[in-house]
Amino acid sequence: MTEQSSRWDVFEFSANGPTEGNPYLEVSFAATFSLDNRQVTVPGFYDGEGVYKVRFCPDTEGEWSFATTSSAKPLAGLKGRLSVGPARANVNGPVRVRNQFHFAHADGKPYLPFGTTCYAWTHQPEALQEQTLKTLAESPFNKIRMGVFPKDYIYNTNEPLYDVYEKRADGSHDMDRPNFECFRHFETQIGRLMDMGIEADIILFHPYDRWGYCTMTEEQDFRYLRYIVARIAAYRNVWWSLANEYDFLLDTKPMERWDRFFHIIEEGDPLRHPKSIHNGDVDKNYDHRKPWVDHVCIQNWDVKKTLAWREASGKPVINDEPEYEGNIAKEWGNISGHELVNRYWLTLCRGGYIGHGETFLDDADELWWAKGGVLRGEAVSRIAFLRKIFEEDAANGLTPLMERGSTFKRVSAVADGEVRYIYFSEHQPVEWALGLPEKDGDYEIDLIDVWNMTVSPLEKAALPKVHPQRITGGSHITNQFAAAFGLKLPGRPFLAVRIRPRRKH
Amino acid sequence: MTEQSSRWDVFEFSANGPTEGNPYLEVSFAATFSLDNRQVTVPGFYDGEGVYKVRFCPDTEGEWSFATTSSAKPLAGLKGRLSVGPARANVNGPVRVRNQFHFAHADGKPYLPFGTTCYAWTHQPEALQEQTLKTLAESPFNKIRMGVFPKDYIYNTNEPLYDVYEKRADGSHDMDRPNFECFRHFETQIGRLMDMGIEADIILFHPYDRWGYCTMTEEQDFRYLRYIVARIAAYRNVWWSLANEYDFLLDTKPMERWDRFFHIIEEGDPLRHPKSIHNGDVDKNYDHRKPWVDHVCIQNWDVKKTLAWREASGKPVINDEPEYEGNIAKEWGNISGHELVNRYWLTLCRGGYIGHGETFLDDADELWWAKGGVLRGEAVSRIAFLRKIFEEDAANGLTPLMERGSTFKRVSAVADGEVRYIYFSEHQPVEWALGLPEKDGDYEIDLIDVWNMTVSPLEKAALPKVHPQRITGGSHITNQFAAAFGLKLPGRPFLAVRIRPRRKH
Repeated sequence: MTEQSSRWDVFEFSANGPTEGNPYLEVSFAATFSLDNRQVTVPGFYDGEGVYKVRFCPDTEGEWSFATTSSAKPLAGLKGRLSVGPARANVNGPVRVRNQFHFAHADGKPYLPFGTTCYAWTHQPEALQEQTLKTLAESPFNKIRMGVFPKDYIYNTNEPLYDVYEKRADGSHDMDRPNFECFRHFETQIGRLMDMGIEADIILFHPYDRWGYCTMTEEQDFRYLRYIVARIAAYRNVWWSLANEYDFLLDTKPMERWDRFFHIIEEGDPLRHPKSIHNGDVDKNYDHRKPWVDHVCIQNWDVKKTLAWREASGKPVINDEPEYEGNIAKEWGNISGHELVNRYWLTLCRGGYIGHGETFLDDADELWWAKGGVLRGEAVSRIAFLRKIFEEDAANGLTPLMERGSTFKRVSAVADGEVRYIYFSEHQPVEWALGLPEKDGDYEIDLIDVWNMTVSPLEKAALPKVHPQRITGGSHITNQFAAAFGLKLPGRPFLAVRIRPRRKH
Repeated sequence: MTEQSSRWDVFEFSANGPTEGNPYLEVSFAATFSLDNRQVTVPGFYDGEGVYKVRFCPDTEGEWSFATTSSAKPLAGLKGRLSVGPARANVNGPVRVRNQFHFAHADGKPYLPFGTTCYAWTHQPEALQEQTLKTLAESPFNKIRMGVFPKDYIYNTNEPLYDVYEKRADGSHDMDRPNFECFRHFETQIGRLMDMGIEADIILFHPYDRWGYCTMTEEQDFRYLRYIVARIAAYRNVWWSLANEYDFLLDTKPMERWDRFFHIIEEGDPLRHPKSIHNGDVDKNYDHRKPWVDHVCIQNWDVKKTLAWREASGKPVINDEPEYEGNIAKEWGNISGHELVNRYWLTLCRGGYIGHGETFLDDADELWWAKGGVLRGEAVSRIAFLRKIFEEDAANGLTPLMERGSTFKRVSAVADGEVRYIYFSEHQPVEWALGLPEKDGDYEIDLIDVWNMTVSPLEKAALPKVHPQRITGGSHITNQFAAAFGLKLPGRPFLAVRIRPRRKH
């Protein structure tokens, strides 16, 4: 009999096998899926009570067949057929790097990451998790950073909904015995995000731990990683974030182990989901130039460096922790919404991407950044506005214009094909020319107030006055503008300008 | 007969000498002033019409004698006596570096530089110069950056009031024949600033030139430098800024020449006025660690680097061009007053100093930054407020507190003895502890709104909640606060806190 599925959906095959001993340690299980002469092997996993599963995300329509392999006789040589139809509506496939510095879904639809952060939301009480999903559904966010393990940290002292590994009588955890219910719940939530069109940026390790999850042996780390990859790699919305603040774990997990982690993921992930790793100390970034890293994921408040990060890595830059909007006593968790919005515009208008988080003091210790719940900040609505602006014309990705003139480095400007955006942040010129088109044309020009969320048309104006002559005396500065026309601006800060060819109506 | 003068005033001795040939090139003149066995030799200069002068600023009270030397017989061996009395009221002597990163007058009075910039104000029409002095008298500024040479640049196309060197029939300038009237006028204005208690930061070279002043031969440069030093080094309020944007002149004046310029100044300047040099490109600073540089003078918008500049140089840091408040089409000349005030607080609360400039578009091209005139910005009144705050308790200088805890790097904090200032800029905590005193005491604590210019008392509060346990798993982060108490804050940005021992009434 032939199973039915759709392109980019999760196909799951289950079989019963041995229960004796510790199947997690002892039983290997995998399946190879074939389409004509093409073969894709995916690892399987033990899900408790003698149930073994493989999950497969078909990237191609057609009549697939599959066969299992296993160290356990009853699980070996099982065969089946899978008929894969077209992707369902609004299913665009996994996100990949495209055009070096940008992302798109497998079907080519541009993907601009607008992520938020709820590190331990799946470990909170069910009601709070439902609230988090409800909030996300109404939010501008299309990606969320979330940890496999619970969090032990300031404002995060409650016990998780489920232990990740089985608890022994003495209260310690047996890192050789997964709590299958915990993993099933975790992937259920990944699936719900998938159905909402939200990418799940899965944080595999982090240092904020009192259960021993971050001090497992190397063997246990590797086994855990193979297991989680086997369980969730078939979800099209998964991203791999090897760690949150990996550098705070370096004395228990040396650098070679992190490199190996990347390899293990690649071994079990035929879809090749985006992989990166996140630093704690701004001076301790992992070397994102290593070939197995797909994009730069950093924590850094100094977003004007976005150009430098692009150039150093040659990869997409996502600043996942440019400091959080909030009011707590921690330096990383108390910037104003206004400043976070400013950092969003600065980052996008320098060709990078940036993530969101909120840390407002709460009597119940329900801070969005770790537990989810509700959003309270002033930035969210402005991020929704910004996302709408940039998705309107998103094509191949935003490329900085700023290097074009040596005097053009402080105001942010990018272009995607013929569409340009200039963001002035703290600058407030009343006339402007840098970054404007060098050849004249029928342009639609808009002034964008990034905080008040208004878009109003602008007319071309004369170029700003330039000095009648070049500067002498060895200076290479010139006051000439390359632009074909200038603009008159209101002379207040936190404005942007969008220039695009006028649309034919 | 004995001349009378006062400590730190300018004593001038004139004599008549040869007029034939070109005395500027051909006649040497100097005087040695003696107090008991101490001798101070100062260079003299030719002032036209056969008049030769030496100027001397006595640093010590007492009965001085002097004798001249010259290559011209009538000017050699002239002798005189000078009785130097105590400094007049409000005369504190020249400014020097004190306590490595700070400044004070020779009599020990702390000097916190609050400078502004009017590059070519002495080359404007008389009425505008009077307006500039009137504006300065009402301003918070106690230092001004000003060039010896006129400026040829955007908004600066008018001819100077006086040529600096004599014009030939063909309109070119004879760099071997100073226009004495121009130099006399320049030092008259330095003297007027001196009487107002304003330091004159004299810019000796700059690239914005159409007269040939910045392309003189090495010999002409050296002679010019010896001449200006002989003329003005006796004014106690002089600082030497070898150049504005020296790096734009490097292809006509190689690095060795800049080094030599410093030496020539030292040879003619017994008071040893503060010396530095200013860059154009933020990546092309002169090496301020060279021993003849007294303080770091830079152009850089990224004021959060102030700590790094201090550490790299081990010298006082003055950021002379953190971008100007204004609205012109140049990136360096159009930040908001709010942002400039923010950069002031960030810089002072990281142990540095920062300069002011204004570039508002003007129909008459009268922009303060180059021509002086009137101030229009919103920052000036806030700078006056800030200056008053910091001078209230100024003693030995502000030392950053931020390195104390590795997690304390993003909010700015400094201490001068027992007085502490914490500046939150874009941060808006509702509770706080970092940088607060580690031992309890009777403190006067004030909340400062840096933009609205209000100061309101704060009470001690409990320390912010900390995590009940240290983080495990190899992280070295701890949530403990070293402070003896905490503060409750309003949760809005751009606030500062001052903590000082309560004054006995």
